Amino acid sequence: MILKMYDYFNIDIDYAKGIYIYSKEGEKYIDTFSGIGVLSFGHSNENLINAMKNKMQRYMHLSNFFLDEDVEWVANKLIEFTDKNGAVFFTNSGTESTEAALKAIKKISTKEKNKIIYFKKGFHGRTLGALSINGFEKLKSPFRPLLPYCKEFEFNDVDGFNDYMKYHGDEIIAVFVEAIQGSGGVMELTKEFSEILNKYHNEKNFILVCDEVQAGLGRTGKFFSYEHFNLKPDIITVGKSLGGGLPLGATIFLNDTTNILKPGDHGSTFAPNPVALAGARYMLDNLPNMLDDVFEKGNYLKNKLESMKTYKIADIRGKGLMIGIELDEPYPDLRESAFKRGLLLNIISNNSVIRLLPALNISYDEIDEIIKILEELL
Amino acid sequence: MILKMYDYFNIDIDYAKGIYIYSKEGEKYIDTFSGIGVLSFGHSNENLINAMKNKMQRYMHLSNFFLDEDVEWVANKLIEFTDKNGAVFFTNSGTESTEAALKAIKKISTKEKNKIIYFKKGFHGRTLGALSINGFEKLKSPFRPLLPYCKEFEFNDVDGFNDYMKYHGDEIIAVFVEAIQGSGGVMELTKEFSEILNKYHNEKNFILVCDEVQAGLGRTGKFFSYEHFNLKPDIITVGKSLGGGLPLGATIFLNDTTNILKPGDHGSTFAPNPVALAGARYMLDNLPNMLDDVFEKGNYLKNKLESMKTYKIADIRGKGLMIGIELDEPYPDLRESAFKRGLLLNIISNNSVIRLLPALNISYDEIDEIIKILEELL
Ligand SMILES: Cc1ncc(COP(=O)(O)O)c(C=O)c1O
Ligand SMILES: Cc1ncc(COP(=O)(O)O)c(C=O)c1O
Repeated sequence: MILKMYDYFNIDIDYAKGIYIYSKEGEKYIDTFSGIGVLSFGHSNENLINAMKNKMQRYMHLSNFFLDEDVEWVANKLIEFTDKNGAVFFTNSGTESTEAALKAIKKISTKEKNKIIYFKKGFHGRTLGALSINGFEKLKSPFRPLLPYCKEFEFNDVDGFNDYMKYHGDEIIAVFVEAIQGSGGVMELTKEFSEILNKYHNEKNFILVCDEVQAGLGRTGKFFSYEHFNLKPDIITVGKSLGGGLPLGATIFLNDTTNILKPGDHGSTFAPNPVALAGARYMLDNLPNMLDDVFEKGNYLKNKLESMKTYKIADIRGKGLMIGIELDEPYPDLRESAFKRGLLLNIISNNSVIRLLPALNISYDEIDEIIKILEELL
Repeated sequence: MILKMYDYFNIDIDYAKGIYIYSKEGEKYIDTFSGIGVLSFGHSNENLINAMKNKMQRYMHLSNFFLDEDVEWVANKLIEFTDKNGAVFFTNSGTESTEAALKAIKKISTKEKNKIIYFKKGFHGRTLGALSINGFEKLKSPFRPLLPYCKEFEFNDVDGFNDYMKYHGDEIIAVFVEAIQGSGGVMELTKEFSEILNKYHNEKNFILVCDEVQAGLGRTGKFFSYEHFNLKPDIITVGKSLGGGLPLGATIFLNDTTNILKPGDHGSTFAPNPVALAGARYMLDNLPNMLDDVFEKGNYLKNKLESMKTYKIADIRGKGLMIGIELDEPYPDLRESAFKRGLLLNIISNNSVIRLLPALNISYDEIDEIIKILEELL
């Protein structure tokens, strides 16, 4: 028996291809969230699978006593997109990426400068370190006490942040932020808040960690979502789509933060898995060409949504193919009625926000297909 | 650039097969530690790879909104070997398995009963929760403060443990133990210490967590290494070889602990990866038949080591194919001289313990090959 943590779709899956999942009974479902933003190239992308199978045929795993032939390429590619110097620590998941960032931060924390700021409804993972900066009280409270010195702020609350900074700014060692909160309901940083983040980042010299696990790697039409907001992170965390569908994450240390963790300070048996690295190499090689397209398709999809004639849509948010449709009220039955029409929806924020994270190579026709069913539903 | 945390073997790897790793220059190396105990069926095991490729061809990843067809089978198989009732939470690594156990423990901790015991040189992972119960001070100290209420004891210190239990036994919520410490230098629980662990486990009603990440899943000739010591764990953590080489771990909750974590209390984007589950299914299907063999081969290997005429071997420890060769003093150059002879050694405990974790399906001839080179070296 598995420990039941989730509500499953009742599909006996045969195979999946592109944006479609096929059941053994011959039904076809449209996947609008690609494994929660993991399958950027869609299900069963042939070239991607072949790259991964080729590595698998040679070796499946090596451990960190060996250098995989793709590891430096993938690390350098990730760094290239930051326009800075840096070094990458690979992990097996988003939460492990957060933990690696936290370890570096804790290593240079002092008695005077040790506060770690995170935002309400920010989500950085579920292990106990990452949970300490998780902005969902419900996910955190059963497990207290967690790490000390972690402090929560309202997302986009300029006044609250200003106030705190005035008196306690020098105590801050790091700020964790998702430029576009994913699990928080696809909420974007405001321009004003981005600006004060940047201002204090300069003035107070804290480490700015951009969590790009969900919004990064092309999801929003830019390589990193913080680029839309002009943030200048010192550390970037990624995961989800990085490994082509296999578990792989990375913590990208930039500038001075590159020198914090020393040999022996961290480690992992699996990460980076070589097959996942082959996936990452394929991904990062092909992603840059797709970015403009992702942004345009996102706008197309949002325009279609905006022109839908329904009172049920209260707000449409997000960038590129990370889109949140806020409903006028919770619709607890919506997931099931969509399912019956062959549409798989990820509805978060207590059944009130449809989160669309489709494959980045979704076609315009496929977008129309999704819109058509949404029109019937909403 | 990748963050350099390790000392790599200087091999440009072409492919790997069985216990051998082949370089692009045509050299052949004997792998004595299978990716730190991950590749129980050796490198590039054809049937295992085919099982994984078949899944990959159908789908690579689904997320926890879907039930993979292998997930219940794998969970039930893991539980079957405990002879108890239970439920499994899947993870992406050993450290994530530890974190899941810790979350359950913290959830039921109270003000009066909240101490988590771990042992010196016990190793349970590197994320901040797992690090809080890591028995290597050096790995932990740069990152303090960690979680509260974690308390370290000497491994096998009967008197110290007895003393503490007498006065503080009721404060203990959980004890984490590796029946055979892996990273700690292949150190086994003594019979006496196992007995008092069992005694207090009964009397004080704490949660006994057996970390089987390294010693479990057949490595020692039993399915779980705690079976050698008659422990009765409430929670078991596994990882390493579980996913056939891909990142996969599991936290096995038994008896009452099955009911601690409720829907929403934990989660992961990737775990359990479907391709890794296909590997796990193959692994768990074929492992039971190999266990007696593993034990015998281990004895054969230890006998060969014991009959070696050298003053350099101070002690030979371990069970099955988890073997520690303690040297009379540190040999910092041994790794390199073995490497030059085509033998890849994992030498831990400050260059003083050779840790052998070969593929479980290693042949007697291959064992002889290893012994031959060790004889030349030691
Ligand atoms: C922004 C963000 N950070 C971190 C994580 C944690 O990643 P994982 O589930 O791979 O541990 C997630 C997962 O959804 C996420 O959305
Ligand atoms: C006994 C034990 N527990 C936990 C871990 C952590 O596993 P991982 O490296 O997959 O996080 C290890 C790793 O070597 C281990 O040996």
